[in-house]
Amino acid sequence: MSSEHARVANFGAGPSALPVSVLEEASKGLLNFQGTGIGIAELSHRSKEFQAFVNNMESLIRTQLDVPPTHRILFTQGGGSMQFSAVVLNMLARHRLLHPERAAEDTVLDYVVTGSWSKKAVEEAQRMGGARVNVVVDSRTFSESGKAFDIIPPHDACKFSEDPALIYYCENETVDGVEFSHEDASPASFPFHLLGKNGGLVPLVADYSSSFMCRPIPHLADHAIIYAGAQKNIGPAGLTILIVREDCIVDVDAAAKLGASPVPLTMSYKTLADSGSLYNTPSVLPMYISGLVLERMQRHGGLKHYEETNKRKAEKVYAVLREGQEKGVFKRKVKEGSGSWMNVVFEVVGPDAEKAFLEGAERAGMMGLKGHRSVGGIRVSLYNAVTEPEVDQFVEYAKQFIAERSA
Amino acid sequence: MSSEHARVANFGAGPSALPVSVLEEASKGLLNFQGTGIGIAELSHRSKEFQAFVNNMESLIRTQLDVPPTHRILFTQGGGSMQFSAVVLNMLARHRLLHPERAAEDTVLDYVVTGSWSKKAVEEAQRMGGARVNVVVDSRTFSESGKAFDIIPPHDACKFSEDPALIYYCENETVDGVEFSHEDASPASFPFHLLGKNGGLVPLVADYSSSFMCRPIPHLADHAIIYAGAQKNIGPAGLTILIVREDCIVDVDAAAKLGASPVPLTMSYKTLADSGSLYNTPSVLPMYISGLVLERMQRHGGLKHYEETNKRKAEKVYAVLREGQEKGVFKRKVKEGSGSWMNVVFEVVGPDAEKAFLEGAERAGMMGLKGHRSVGGIRVSLYNAVTEPEVDQFVEYAKQFIAERSA
Repeated sequence: MSSEHARVANFGAGPSALPVSVLEEASKGLLNFQGTGIGIAELSHRSKEFQAFVNNMESLIRTQLDVPPTHRILFTQGGGSMQFSAVVLNMLARHRLLHPERAAEDTVLDYVVTGSWSKKAVEEAQRMGGARVNVVVDSRTFSESGKAFDIIPPHDACKFSEDPALIYYCENETVDGVEFSHEDASPASFPFHLLGKNGGLVPLVADYSSSFMCRPIPHLADHAIIYAGAQKNIGPAGLTILIVREDCIVDVDAAAKLGASPVPLTMSYKTLADSGSLYNTPSVLPMYISGLVLERMQRHGGLKHYEETNKRKAEKVYAVLREGQEKGVFKRKVKEGSGSWMNVVFEVVGPDAEKAFLEGAERAGMMGLKGHRSVGGIRVSLYNAVTEPEVDQFVEYAKQFIAERSA
Repeated sequence: MSSEHARVANFGAGPSALPVSVLEEASKGLLNFQGTGIGIAELSHRSKEFQAFVNNMESLIRTQLDVPPTHRILFTQGGGSMQFSAVVLNMLARHRLLHPERAAEDTVLDYVVTGSWSKKAVEEAQRMGGARVNVVVDSRTFSESGKAFDIIPPHDACKFSEDPALIYYCENETVDGVEFSHEDASPASFPFHLLGKNGGLVPLVADYSSSFMCRPIPHLADHAIIYAGAQKNIGPAGLTILIVREDCIVDVDAAAKLGASPVPLTMSYKTLADSGSLYNTPSVLPMYISGLVLERMQRHGGLKHYEETNKRKAEKVYAVLREGQEKGVFKRKVKEGSGSWMNVVFEVVGPDAEKAFLEGAERAGMMGLKGHRSVGGIRVSLYNAVTEPEVDQFVEYAKQFIAERSA
C-alpha cells in the first residue's frame, strides 16, 4: 500500500505507533470483517464471530504472558484514569467483605509513588474516600533536587501497612521515564519480598499501561490486579485490559450493604467477569486492532522476541545518550538503573538546543519526541511497534547532533 | 473499492451500519491521517490536528442539533450504561450543592420507565444510593398483558415529584421499539408541559442513544443532560456524546464535602468540561469515524434531510407490517402511535415462521434482523446509514413473504 511510504517514524508516548501490516489488515476489516459482509465497527458484539475474536484475544494474552487460571482477563473502556477509581472501589469492597467491622479510618490503601501517574492514582484514592491513603514511599525524597521523579527508591524505603486493602505501584512511569527493574536482584526492582509476610493473598495492584506486553511480567501470579490501556504497545486508545485474581472479583452489592461505597456497574469487575467483558457494548474497533496486534506478536515469537528486541532498542538509545552526556550535549534525566525501556527521557543542553533537536528530527522524518508538557525535555518512546531500523535512524541522528554540537 | 460489493444490508440494532464512503476514508486515515504521516489511531490526542478535529466535531453537532450556548458538548467513553451511574452521581452532587441540608431519604430521582433501557437505568439508580428512586410511570401497566413495554403512557399518568434531583427518560427504547412522538400535540410525546412549573431549570435527563442525530431533538434547550452512545447513528462503539447544561457541570468535590457520593474523576462532567473532553486519552479512532459521519451528514443537508429520509424509511416498513398483520402473517408488537422510527419490532405468526423469515432474509443478503434476546421476534433497525434502497429491498422481501404465507 502506497500510504506506507509517506509514513514517518513515530516515537510518540501514546497513542503511539502500530504495525503497518496490522493497519493494512484493519483497513480491510473496516469494510468487511472475516467475510461476513459487515465491517468490524458495524458488527454486533453478540455475534459469534466477534465473541470468537474476543475469546482468541484473551487466549493470546494468557498464553504469551503466562497468566495462571487463578486470574481472569477482562476488557473494558475508560483508560488507566478510570482504573484509578475502579481499583479503589473494587478493592475496598473486597476488604469490606473480609473485614465487615473495620472502620474507614482503620482501612488503609498503600501507594508506592515513583512518578506522575502513581501520584495521580494517589490523588484519586484520596478523592474516593472510604479509607486512609498511605504513601509507602515517594521517590522524590531520593532525588537530588527533592522534586524530581528520577529514581526507583531502595527497597528498605518502602513502609507497607499491616493489612492494606491494596498496595499500588506503577511499573513504568510514562511521563518521567522511570521503571522498576525486571531483575529481582536489582535494587530498582519492586520489593516483592517485603509483601505477604502473613502468607495470604497480597492485594497488589499494578498499573502496567505503558509496559504491558513489552516483556513478561515478573511475579504476575502474585498480583491482585494488573491493568493497562491498550494505546502503548498493543492497540488504539479506548481499550483497557485487566488481569484480575479471582478473589478480587467480589459481590460489590453485598459489600455496599455492609457499608462500602457503591460501585458503578460498568466499573465492577464482577459485572465484567460475569458477562465475559460484554455486559454492555465494548469498544469493538480498538479491540479488533489490538487482537490483530496480539496475533502478530504470537506469529513473531511472542514476548521473548519482544523482550529481546526492546532491550536492544533501549540499550542503543541509552548508549547514545551516554555518549552525548560525556560530550556535554545531552543530560540524562533518570538515574542509572532506573531508566525505562519504553520511555527514555533526557535534556539537550544549551539555549534553544531542544528546539533545534526536535526540528532536525522532524526534518529527518521522526515525530513525537517532545517530552510531556509537565516536565519538558525530550522523550523517546520505544514501544513494540517502533522498529529497530527506526531506532537506528534515531541513534544516527543523535550521533550527528552530538558531533555538530561538540565540534 | 471492491469490498463494497461483498457487503450485505445490515439492519442490526447496534453496533450498526456505517456509510461505505466513510469507512473507505477511514481506512486511509488508519495509515495516514490528514497527511501527517501518522495513522489516526497512532496520533497524539494532544496534537493540534486531533484537537482541531474534535473542535470541528463539536461544532458539527452544535450546528446540526441547534445546541444553544447554555449547553456544553462533551465526549467520553463507557457507553450508555456508564451514564446510568454518571447522571445519578453528577445530578446528586448538583442537588446537594443546591440543598446542602436535605437528607438522602428526602432526595428523589424521578424515572419514566418505558422499556428495557429505562428499567436498567432505574436499577442502577437504586444501586447507587443517596436518594429515593421514584418511578413516575411504568408503561407496562398500560399494556394489555401488563408485562410488555409496548406503549408510551398518557401524559396524565406521569406523577413527577416536587423537586427531584433528576427526571429521567429514554427517548427511544432500542429493545422494545417504542419511542416518544416528536409532535408535542401527540399523546405519545414526552409531557414537557408538566415539568418546571416553578419556572426553574428542570433537571431533565434523556437517554438518546438510539435516536441521536436521526432528527432534531424537541425541547433540547430544556434538557439538563442528553447523552448517547455513538454506535447507532453516527459511529463505532466506544464513544459517548453528552450535551450538558452549564448548571449541571458542578464542583463534585465540593458536593462530596457536603455529603454527596464521590464521583470517579472520569465520570465527572466537570473534569470533561474543564479539559475539553481530553482529561485522559479519549477513544481516538471511534471519535474519528464519528467525525467523518458528522461531516458527511452536514454535506448531505443536515438533520432535516435525515429526518425526512428516516420518516419515509419507517413509514415504508410500518406499511408492510400493517399489510402483513391484516393477512395474519405478521403481528406488530407496539401500539399504533408509539412505534419507533429507528427500531421496528414485530412477530412472524406461526410455528418456525420467524426462523424461516430470518433465513430467507439472510439468503437475500439482509442481516441483523433478529430481535433482542430478551424479547425475541424480529427487529428492523433503520439508523441513518441504512439506505432507502436497502429498506426497499427489505419491504420487497417482506411483501413476498406475506404473499407466500397468505396464499
